[in-house]
Amino acid sequence: MSSDKNRVLIFDTTLRDGEQCPGATMTFEEKLEIADFLDEMGVDIIEAGFPIASEGDFEAVNAIAKRVKRATVAGLARAINADIDRAGEAVKAAQRGRIHTFVSTSPIHLAHQMRKSEAEVLDIIAATVARARNLVEDIEWSAMDATRTPIEYLCRCVETAIRAGATTINLPDTVGYATPDEYRDMFRAVRARVPDSDKAIFSVHCHDDLGLAVANSLGGLEGGARQIECTINGIGERAGNAALEEIVMAIKTRGDVLPYETGIDNRMLTRASKLVSAATSFPVQYNKAIVGRNAFAHESGIHQDGMLKNTQTYEIMTPESVGVSKTSLVMGKHSGRNAFRDKLKQLGYEISDNQLEDAFVRFKALADRKKHIYDEDIEALVDENIATREDRVKVLNLLVVAGTNGPQSAVLTLDIDGQHHTRQATGNGPVDATFNAIQQMIPHQAKLELYQVHAVTEGTDAQAEVSVRLADTEGKLVTGRAADPDTLVASAKAYIVALNKLTSARGAGDPRLHAHHGAA
Amino acid sequence: MSSDKNRVLIFDTTLRDGEQCPGATMTFEEKLEIADFLDEMGVDIIEAGFPIASEGDFEAVNAIAKRVKRATVAGLARAINADIDRAGEAVKAAQRGRIHTFVSTSPIHLAHQMRKSEAEVLDIIAATVARARNLVEDIEWSAMDATRTPIEYLCRCVETAIRAGATTINLPDTVGYATPDEYRDMFRAVRARVPDSDKAIFSVHCHDDLGLAVANSLGGLEGGARQIECTINGIGERAGNAALEEIVMAIKTRGDVLPYETGIDNRMLTRASKLVSAATSFPVQYNKAIVGRNAFAHESGIHQDGMLKNTQTYEIMTPESVGVSKTSLVMGKHSGRNAFRDKLKQLGYEISDNQLEDAFVRFKALADRKKHIYDEDIEALVDENIATREDRVKVLNLLVVAGTNGPQSAVLTLDIDGQHHTRQATGNGPVDATFNAIQQMIPHQAKLELYQVHAVTEGTDAQAEVSVRLADTEGKLVTGRAADPDTLVASAKAYIVALNKLTSARGAGDPRLHAHHGAA
Repeated sequence: MSSDKNRVLIFDTTLRDGEQCPGATMTFEEKLEIADFLDEMGVDIIEAGFPIASEGDFEAVNAIAKRVKRATVAGLARAINADIDRAGEAVKAAQRGRIHTFVSTSPIHLAHQMRKSEAEVLDIIAATVARARNLVEDIEWSAMDATRTPIEYLCRCVETAIRAGATTINLPDTVGYATPDEYRDMFRAVRARVPDSDKAIFSVHCHDDLGLAVANSLGGLEGGARQIECTINGIGERAGNAALEEIVMAIKTRGDVLPYETGIDNRMLTRASKLVSAATSFPVQYNKAIVGRNAFAHESGIHQDGMLKNTQTYEIMTPESVGVSKTSLVMGKHSGRNAFRDKLKQLGYEISDNQLEDAFVRFKALADRKKHIYDEDIEALVDENIATREDRVKVLNLLVVAGTNGPQSAVLTLDIDGQHHTRQATGNGPVDATFNAIQQMIPHQAKLELYQVHAVTEGTDAQAEVSVRLADTEGKLVTGRAADPDTLVASAKAYIVALNKLTSARGAGDPRLHAHHGAA
Repeated sequence: MSSDKNRVLIFDTTLRDGEQCPGATMTFEEKLEIADFLDEMGVDIIEAGFPIASEGDFEAVNAIAKRVKRATVAGLARAINADIDRAGEAVKAAQRGRIHTFVSTSPIHLAHQMRKSEAEVLDIIAATVARARNLVEDIEWSAMDATRTPIEYLCRCVETAIRAGATTINLPDTVGYATPDEYRDMFRAVRARVPDSDKAIFSVHCHDDLGLAVANSLGGLEGGARQIECTINGIGERAGNAALEEIVMAIKTRGDVLPYETGIDNRMLTRASKLVSAATSFPVQYNKAIVGRNAFAHESGIHQDGMLKNTQTYEIMTPESVGVSKTSLVMGKHSGRNAFRDKLKQLGYEISDNQLEDAFVRFKALADRKKHIYDEDIEALVDENIATREDRVKVLNLLVVAGTNGPQSAVLTLDIDGQHHTRQATGNGPVDATFNAIQQMIPHQAKLELYQVHAVTEGTDAQAEVSVRLADTEGKLVTGRAADPDTLVASAKAYIVALNKLTSARGAGDPRLHAHHGAA
């Protein structure tokens, strides 16, 4: 349809810039699951993490590099030798590995953060890009805060990076400051002035602080960029990054004025959104473009009337084109193991036999308690299964008495490393009482930052999905989620998932469930 | 600072296009509260509703017209005499009243929805605008689906509307289809070609289906528009409207390339966002620009380091500029009535003595149960107070037994019109049991569409705020919310608030609490 020069590469940074935002911490398993999904959806480059940041980040990037079949896998590195070497090590097992190294170029960053001169930074670019190039062929270099960098100096930086071997040049709008015209003009100017600019692919990376991330990204394409850095649901630092699903559907829907092409299978966008929302416990606002629950809903009588007459009167893309399907009644208590396995495949899950067995047991237990089981119920069940299969602590039994006449009380039995423990606690509300019982058995200093419940499907007998976000004393945030028809049971499970994450976030092999206990 | 010709009018349609989206139904009291807030914040035009749509809409527009001090109050009307007359009646009490009438102009709408010829539509425009102009001075005319209308015909429509007396011409991107350049060029073309185009103010109205609503709105300004239609939090049909807070802050932050001025007090934006989110129970996504909870949060070590050295390294606007204040410990159980009243004033609440008394009683009850009381706790308490003061049903007593060994059970006592009723019910989870008890005392056909809980403040003893969305058999959606330290008590209260809304949404004075009972 379009020539190669209009093929736009989609660089997904959900696992790096997305995971970097407060509260979005994902487990190792969640990262692999998302990476597999992105690869299958047709993402060209998956930025899998920042290998030097922690042992966990390194391992995730390394594991993703090994398993991803189609996409290039990138690891982030500052302009520091140790960062670059570590990133190179993390991605070297990939069929296509990329080191993405960056340095600040704007006067304000040079003066206040780097405390280096322009000349010194040019030397750093030449040395670090060359070092990376000795490790892998595919090098991306980013000019941090490019949009607040004078064009002459920016051109010298880009020229230096290309000469040292960078194959992709990213000019991010780090602080979300640009307008579409400015951003387009910056790319035009840099590409026109820099010798050999045609030897690199230029890339956009936009933040949404002023609500302009998608428009700026498209502006960059007009200026000659052919790679877009973006995230599922637009998560990321502060107001987030440009949303992958919006970019992809804008290009697809307006091919007449945006003559580009991506390799994304747009029918997978809705599922990608749900996967990332579930892993991070970040809700998607109802009116979010493309993937919000109202994105294709029509309330007003006028619109409904028009839709009945001709869907094109108010619809510029179909819900089916992004993979929205009607919630459908799928399974009941008489469904067998094979039907369950088929359903999982259809929903996009490929799980091992052991995991299947676990999930099937949970499914039967749920079918005993809940009349109608929907796709979303099964998704919640399997997602929880994946999240909790490494747990050392399990909820065995919970009895709560609550209501208007406090104090509310909870009797909780946990299995901790195979040992059963039971405690009774009271609290200000049933959730508080339950969490107090956990605190008695697993003392910890973590603080509850967020508590959230939503029903997975409709009806009062829906499963409740609970998200719990904890902060340790150093401010590190993790989120746990769990589903159960009983809100309080789900709350206990979610809290324990979060506690487990807090432990494992400290580094692999740390045996302490409550690292701060007795430490401070 | 800038000349009058760069003054951009902010037309807020949260109460019309916003309320029109599925599930966003607001009560009469909520609408008045939001209108008062928008007026104080400096919104130029408040679109208060669609008077012909229902008795409730008419009454809300009429009441807002009477009380608003500064802003123009607009009522929406189709190109139908009855609509226009009703809108005129609704806004006539306003110091500045406006009728906003619209008709479709695109070929696809003419062919499929209107089934009229171009010439017939021109006649309709002339007649309906003239009729409106006989009722009030200030007439806005909108070309529905303007962005898919051939420019020649669009110009003839605009010319006809101006000649008939329209003072504002709105050219909406009804289906969220335009790109910024296209939208700018449309305004340029229409303003250049239409005689007397300088006699009207041109207006933008953008939907965010492709993530471009803010950029398109700014494109419209570049093309000469000087009114922006937008909503708080960007709520509205499908993917919503352009977000007021993003538009205002883009203009303020980038005054160098966007040389416009609005009358909005930007320090009130965060509070506006919370008010609308609470009234609609629509969560704001964490990375939402300007008003998301992460909008000013910095997680990565690199960014934090930069922020410590100089906030400008990563921050293009300050949290304070949009009214974000640190959550602060404010009150305890020894705080008196006067301190409480002062605190409410400081939080922006002005309530009557009776309401104050109610709220103070609740505050003392809360202070007995909760160690730390934050601003957000007090806001939740007063919001709930406002939402429930007309309730005919009150939760008197609730006792719930729940946990892993079902069935869970609830014993609930309600006060219904002064009579006490008690029922016991079991269910699949404690929430289901509680709702089943309500169903026994107040039989109804409404279906639970959404159930959501979040903690109002941090810590396990935070108040839980519960949102419950119900749909009646005709698909009408209402949302109830309530706060209590006990999640289950809050759930019962929220469900009852929603039931009350469902009743009152049927029209004032309807005495039936369960209109469908025995009807279907």
